Order: sequence, then C-alpha cells, then structure tokens
Amino acid sequence: MEAGAPVRTIDINCDMGESFGVYTLGDDDTMLSIVTSANIACGYHAGDPLVMHRTLAAAAARGVNVGAHPSLHDLWGFGRRRILDESPDEIAKQIIYQIGALRALAECQGIRLAHVKTHGSLGNMAAEDAALAAAIAGAIASVDSGLSFTVMPAMATEKAALEAGLTPIREIYADRAYADTGNLMSRKLPGSVIHGPDLAADRVLRMIEADAVICESGKRIPGRIDSVCVHGDTPDAVSMARRLRERLEQAGLKVAPPSKDSKTL
Amino acid sequence: MEAGAPVRTIDINCDMGESFGVYTLGDDDTMLSIVTSANIACGYHAGDPLVMHRTLAAAAARGVNVGAHPSLHDLWGFGRRRILDESPDEIAKQIIYQIGALRALAECQGIRLAHVKTHGSLGNMAAEDAALAAAIAGAIASVDSGLSFTVMPAMATEKAALEAGLTPIREIYADRAYADTGNLMSRKLPGSVIHGPDLAADRVLRMIEADAVICESGKRIPGRIDSVCVHGDTPDAVSMARRLRERLEQAGLKVAPPSKDSKTL
Amino acid sequence: MEAGAPVRTIDINCDMGESFGVYTLGDDDTMLSIVTSANIACGYHAGDPLVMHRTLAAAAARGVNVGAHPSLHDLWGFGRRRILDESPDEIAKQIIYQIGALRALAECQGIRLAHVKTHGSLGNMAAEDAALAAAIAGAIASVDSGLSFTVMPAMATEKAALEAGLTPIREIYADRAYADTGNLMSRKLPGSVIHGPDLAADRVLRMIEADAVICESGKRIPGRIDSVCVHGDTPDAVSMARRLRERLEQAGLKVAPPSKDSKTL
Amino acid sequence: MEAGAPVRTIDINCDMGESFGVYTLGDDDTMLSIVTSANIACGYHAGDPLVMHRTLAAAAARGVNVGAHPSLHDLWGFGRRRILDESPDEIAKQIIYQIGALRALAECQGIRLAHVKTHGSLGNMAAEDAALAAAIAGAIASVDSGLSFTVMPAMATEKAALEAGLTPIREIYADRAYADTGNLMSRKLPGSVIHGPDLAADRVLRMIEADAVICESGKRIPGRIDSVCVHGDTPDAVSMARRLRERLEQAGLKVAPPSKDSKTL
Repeated sequence: MEAGAPVRTIDINCDMGESFGVYTLGDDDTMLSIVTSANIACGYHAGDPLVMHRTLAAAAARGVNVGAHPSLHDLWGFGRRRILDESPDEIAKQIIYQIGALRALAECQGIRLAHVKTHGSLGNMAAEDAALAAAIAGAIASVDSGLSFTVMPAMATEKAALEAGLTPIREIYADRAYADTGNLMSRKLPGSVIHGPDLAADRVLRMIEADAVICESGKRIPGRIDSVCVHGDTPDAVSMARRLRERLEQAGLKVAPPSKDSKTL
Repeated sequence: MEAGAPVRTIDINCDMGESFGVYTLGDDDTMLSIVTSANIACGYHAGDPLVMHRTLAAAAARGVNVGAHPSLHDLWGFGRRRILDESPDEIAKQIIYQIGALRALAECQGIRLAHVKTHGSLGNMAAEDAALAAAIAGAIASVDSGLSFTVMPAMATEKAALEAGLTPIREIYADRAYADTGNLMSRKLPGSVIHGPDLAADRVLRMIEADAVICESGKRIPGRIDSVCVHGDTPDAVSMARRLRERLEQAGLKVAPPSKDSKTL
Repeated sequence: MEAGAPVRTIDINCDMGESFGVYTLGDDDTMLSIVTSANIACGYHAGDPLVMHRTLAAAAARGVNVGAHPSLHDLWGFGRRRILDESPDEIAKQIIYQIGALRALAECQGIRLAHVKTHGSLGNMAAEDAALAAAIAGAIASVDSGLSFTVMPAMATEKAALEAGLTPIREIYADRAYADTGNLMSRKLPGSVIHGPDLAADRVLRMIEADAVICESGKRIPGRIDSVCVHGDTPDAVSMARRLRERLEQAGLKVAPPSKDSKTL
Repeated sequence: MEAGAPVRTIDINCDMGESFGVYTLGDDDTMLSIVTSANIACGYHAGDPLVMHRTLAAAAARGVNVGAHPSLHDLWGFGRRRILDESPDEIAKQIIYQIGALRALAECQGIRLAHVKTHGSLGNMAAEDAALAAAIAGAIASVDSGLSFTVMPAMATEKAALEAGLTPIREIYADRAYADTGNLMSRKLPGSVIHGPDLAADRVLRMIEADAVICESGKRIPGRIDSVCVHGDTPDAVSMARRLRERLEQAGLKVAPPSKDSKTL
C-alpha cells in the first residue's frame, strides 16, 4: 500500500456459542483472541440461554463485536438441513424471536448487538431467494435498523440489506470454494472445503485484492469484501484463523470490526 | 362504595398464546374481549413465534395489556412439572431469553410489554423460594425496570418484586382454592378447583373486599389485590370470565389494566 | 355385484394418536367406531408414549387394526414440512426407531402391529423417490417382514414394498384431488381438498369401480385399491368418514381390515 | 483365591452412545475395548437413531453386551435433572418406548439386548422410591422378562427387579462415594467424586472382597456386586477404566459380562 493511503480494514468473523447443555463445540475462548466479530447462536440450531450469556460475556471481555446468528429450528441437524414449506413471513418471525432473545441477554450485560448473520441452510437459501432475503432483512430492520446484516457479496441478501436500509457486511469464507452462482459449493463436492492455513489465506488475499469473489472455475464476481468468515468447529480451526490474521496484517490490512460506512453498492 | 370515593380498579388477567404449531388451546379471541391483561407464552411451555406474533396483535387490537409469560423449558409437560437441579441464576437467564424474544416480536408491531408473569410450576416454586423469586425479579428488572411483576400476595415473589424496584401486580385466582401457606392448593386435592361462575365470583369479591387471600381453612392473609386470574383453557373458561367481569362491575369496581401506583407494601 | 361373486373388502384407515401432552387433536374415540385401521403417531410429528399407549388400547378394544405412522422428526411442523439433506439410510434408522417404540407399547398390551404408513411429507417424498421408498420398505422389513406397508397405488412406494417382500396396502384419499403424477395435489392448489361427504364418497366409489386412481385432469392410473384414507383432524372428519362407510356398504363392499393376500402386482 | 475354586466374574459397564447430531461425547470406541457391557442412550437424554445404530454395531463387533439406558425426557439437562409430577405409570410408558426403539435397531442387526439400566436422576429417584422402582421393573419385564435390570445393591430397584422376576445386575460406581442410604453422594458434595485410577480401583476391590457397599462414613451395606460402572465422559475416563480392568484381573477376577445366575437375594 502507498504511504498516506488510508489503511483498509478487514473483519474476521466466526460462529460461536454453539455448545448446548453438556455438549461442547469449538474452542470459543481461543477463537475470541483472534477474530473481531462473533456470530452467536440463539438456541435454534445450537446454544442455550446459559451458553449465550457466557459467550456474550467472553466476547465483550475481548472487545469482540457480537451479533445474532439465527437459524432454522433444527437442533438435531445443527441448522444445516433445508426445511421447506415455511413462508418467508413465518421465518421472519422466528428471526425476530432469536434476535430478541440474544439482545436481551446482551443488554443485561451492557452489551450492544452489532450485526445479524443467518446460519447454515437458512443463509444458503436466502442468498438465492429474493423473497426470503427481503423477509430476513425486514425482520432485522424491524428489531433495530442499526444492526448490520452479514451477507455474501452480490447475492440476494446483499441487495435485500441495502433495500431495507441495513449496512451489509459482505463476507467471504476462508475455507470454502465458490460455485459460479456466487454461492458456496456444496460440502459434498470434491474440493469444496479448503485445507491448509496458507492456501486459505492465499485465496482470501487474492479475493480482497481483486475486490471480487473468485469462483472455483476462475470466474470473478465483483463485490466489496468487508469480512472473512473462519469456522470454529474444525480440528485446525484455530491454526487457520491465526495464520489468516497474520497474513492479513502482513499484507498491510488492519484487522478490525466493520465500520458502518459500507451502505453503498 | 361511598359517593365521591375514588373508584377502585381491578385487572383481569389470562394466560394466552398457548397454541403450538397445529395444536390449538383456548379461545383467545373471545377471552380478549373480556380480560384486561394477557400473559403471553414465550415458546418454553407453549407458543411459537407465529402464535406469539398473532396473540400480540390480537391483544393490541382489543386494547388489552400484554405481558410475557415465561416458564421452565417443558413443552411436553406444559410447564406444569417441577424441574429441579437448576440454579436460580440459570433460570434467570432463561427468563431473560423468553422476555427478550416476546419483547422483540411486540416492539416490531409498536407494542410495549407491560408485565411479566411466570407460568405453572415456576410460579409456584418461586412463590415459596426467596432465592428463586429474587433471581426472577432481578432478571425482569435487568431487561426493563418498567415491567411490572405479577405475583401472589404476601408470597416471596411479592417481596422480591418490591426489593428489585418492580411494581408488583398482586393477583388472586378466580377458580382455585388456597392453602394456609398462601399458595394454591394442589390440583390433585379435592376442592382445589372451583366450579361455577357465581361461586368463583363470590369468592373473588369477598377477597377483594377483605383485602386478603381467604384460604380454604378460613384463614385470612392480608394483602392488596390488583388483579384476578382467569384460566382460558377450560371448557367453561369464557362463561366464568364473563360472569366475573359482570359481577365485578356490578359491585362498582372498574375493570381495567393495573396502574403503576402499587409500588408500596 | 353378481350373486355368488366373492364380496370385495375395503379397508378404511385413519391417522390417530396425534395428541401431545396437553394438546388434543381429533376425535379418535368416535373415529375408531367407524374405521378399520388406525395409523398411530410415534412421537416424531405427534404423539407421546402415553398417547400411544391409550390409542393402542382404544383401537384394540374396538377390534381396529393398528399400525405405526412414522414421520420426519418435526413436532412443530407436524411432519408436514419437507426436511432435506438426510440420506435414505438416515431416515431408515429413524423409522426403525419409531416402529420399535410403538411395537413395544403394543406388545405389552398383547397387541400386534399390522402395518406401517409414513406420515405427511415423508410419505409424499417417498412416493416419488425410489431410493427413499426402498430404504423405508427395507426398514419395515428389517423390523418385521409380516408388516404391511400402506402405499399410494402405482407410486415408488408400492414398487418398493413388493421388492422388499412386504404386502402393500394401496390406499386412496377420500378428500384429496390427484395430480397426473399419481401423487396428491398440493394443499395450496384450489380444488385440492374435497369438501362434502357425498362428493368424497362418489369419487372413492368411482375409483374403486375403475380399479384406478382418477386424477383431477380425468387421467386414470390403473392400480388396485385396498384402503381408503380418511382424515381425523378436520371439523367434518366424523361425518365424512361415517357417510363414506355407509356408501361403501350400500355399494355391496365389505368394510374390513386388509387381508394379507395382496402381494401381487 | 484357592486352587480349584470357581473364578469369580465381574462385569464392567459404561454408558455409551451419548452423542447427538453434530455433538460428540466420550470416546466410545476406546471404552468398548475395555468394558464388557454398554448401556446405550435411547434418545431421551442423549443419542439419536444414527448414534444408537452405530453404537450397537460397534459394541457387537467387540463382543460387548448391550443394554438400553432409558432416561427422563431431558436432552438439555442430559437426564440429570429431577423432573417431578409424573406418575410411575407415565414413566413406565416412556421406558417401554425407549427400550422398544433401541431393541428394534438392535434386532435389525441381529443383536439381542441383554439388560436395562436407568440413567441419571431417574436411576437415583428409583433407587429410593419403591413405587417408581416397581413401575420400571414392570415396564422392563413387560417388554422382555429375559432382560436383566442393572441396579444398586440393597436399594428399592434391586427388590423391584427380583419381585418382577428379572435378573438384577448389582453395580457399584468406581468413581463415586456413597451416602449411608446406599445411594450416591450428591455430586455437589466435596469428596463425592473419586479421582485417580488406583484410588478408584482400591475402593472397588475392597467392596467386592467385602461383598458390601462401603459408604463414605465407613458403614457397610452387605450386598452382592456383579458389575462396576465406569464413566465414559470424563477426561481421564479411559485411563481409569483401563487401570480398573488390570487391577481386577490382577486380583484373580474374570472380567466378563454378567451371567444369568444371580436371581437370588
């Protein structure tokens, strides 16, 4: 980067608070020392009020931004199964419920929610379904129009965020390959999951530099990138996240929560 | 009542929004034309986001006060089973979760929650357990100290409400007999459930006049009475509620939501 | 019918035991006085061990055949939502679980299960998905190859039943219109649900006479018909079932549980 | 032991199959190489049909005895919370449901269940409640009177097993201290959980030698000991189980599943 040029900031976000009762998932404490935004499960695919409370407190203690991570109602399937035959409006009510529950647990500790990111199959479905995306963005805005909406660049959710007057946080995935639609390749396809911290960091840096999602085919989908999502529930999650942060900083980027200035296309 | 004396007001409250998915419980629409406060289930013992949304809208359309009706997490047992081995603090988090979820669904419609009333076995347990009562009152206050807390007169919950700075709404049950502790007699005991609209109204009027809970034994427990609880899920619920309202009005009472002036013992 | 010709028998089946905890659905007792087979929910879309026990006992007391009515795991959606991203093998295990649970509750009362019918969206999905149909038939056969499998005529499930060596019970729906695929028309389409007991009975008799499913378009899909399904959870369920039984008997059919002689195409 | 004396056998049992969906609990594969009986969760406190199927298969491949491990219906609390206000008969139906579900998944693989052991708070409650113990024993016997019932020596469950004609498997816990009632000391009390593989093995050997439960106070409660329970979900579970087995074998005991000859007091 040129001297004098403003330093570009990039957020690193991670799903957290996905334990439930006696079941523990992920090493949230360590991840909180690396990432800048935490998407906290709200009890529909994972999490319970105690886990939510603890995760909020731990994130705040680290100065990490917190957001709600609502899902379809599917504990058994961890929100990864597509459940059809619900109207966008029915899903909107479920999202309001989840955000409201987390927000109350946050505010009791003096913590303010910064964003909302939908989980698993709900996120994938919304990215390709304009009516669902609009319903979700509307739900978020109806709770608090100051909440940002974490979306995939150039997909239906980004458009819905802007139309609802929400600040979109456009994220790419560090460890996932992209189909030509701009959506994630199915986990079932070979090559869909990227292994190796440096390989993942290389890809992330290339996309940030190009201001584009770079698909598996080489296709480029132009779009601003505000955040990189790392996963917390895989064996090498911590080492991948740590290496990514180092590489971003070595490249001259400032790793920090997203600012609110990204409301334009 | 003497001419010139201020008219005493009395609230009638009813549990509502206790349907779930395809399952319907109670005739909420008719009850909303009779009562002045609705305690709305929050998904733990009954209710789901769609039911909650609909019930809030219907209550607001009738000008009925709405409150949260949190419970232990027990859909199968409808919140009526005592679940032990949870700390007061763990229960507090669950209550914050539920109030927050309902509050968000309310605020999206421009509706403000007025009160919180605990459901079923949670209410019974808290009435006799000072630590649990304090945790619940603290949970409510931490969400919004402007929320009233519906309690049984002279029980641990009333004391906890006052100590937490919350306005207590002291309620009696129209159709239930009282043990000498001031708590409800177990449903399993003979005579614990009052049948007959006029019999129920007689008892309610006697207690209001006496400013006391009158127990099955004749014992009187002095205490202010702000509200009468009617049930919505019994076959004669509507006729009992309707007759009660008539009788209260015939006796010169004004049936209306509770005011906020009851913060003293 | 000609004198001397064997009397044709026809079964009437109904979904039952779909209450849950305090929630009641349908008038099972009355329906049991009309139908000849009961499909009993197994706790996945409805039902709980107490409801299952009671429903088994009530059916046996009436001499009504009992069968398991397994579903996708979806109490909130009553098994009517399609849940994707489960393999046929994963669903097979869930079906074995449900049949086993009901079978144990039946055998403790000296009752033997006669058949299995899949519920809601699981049934619709299996009718059009050969791999899923085969997995379900395999699951049933692995529990007890003497169980019949209630299927839609000429669909994937009928073929799967025969290939697994199970006796298929081919059923038509009294109150539903058929698409040209042989599957039910979506409930969302106009005309998909038949109202009026005599209209429904007319259609059923025409199909039985024709030995074919008669679609909304007029198309005929030849197939043997062993049973007619009536619903128990609609307001006019009882009158429709009663009228259907009268009309079938007036037409000279014998209303009785299916025999085991239908193992050929 | 004297030459010529029959070798005494002792069983080692462990709770297993307590994973759920994406959540993993315990190292079942390693524990299966050490223990001789596996108590498999049935979906009420943990486990799901896929986990149950896999655990059954893995146990059978190792030649480990399998039994059902039914619980109160409490996934969130892992079956450790006491849920009151259910009648013994209602609990009996839930136990039949769970045993039946597991049995079907077992039989499909050619595996026969050997025993039933109740989980968590249900086990503790039954040990001290004769009516509940009798209902549970009756439920087991009604499913299959050939099933053994794993119980605590000299408690209500042992008596109920014998009266129901079931073979009791009297177990002691390797890592838990005993109250003078013969029941486990609450986990909340200091000293209730034994740490250190050799300390635990010492205690087990002393009790087996004494044919008595030795309480924390020194009190001895005479009773036959057929099995030792090890836990699978603690960090040092594997090393404790392994050391226990070595020590039992060094002491001349034969570690093997229980035989069926223990039907006498």
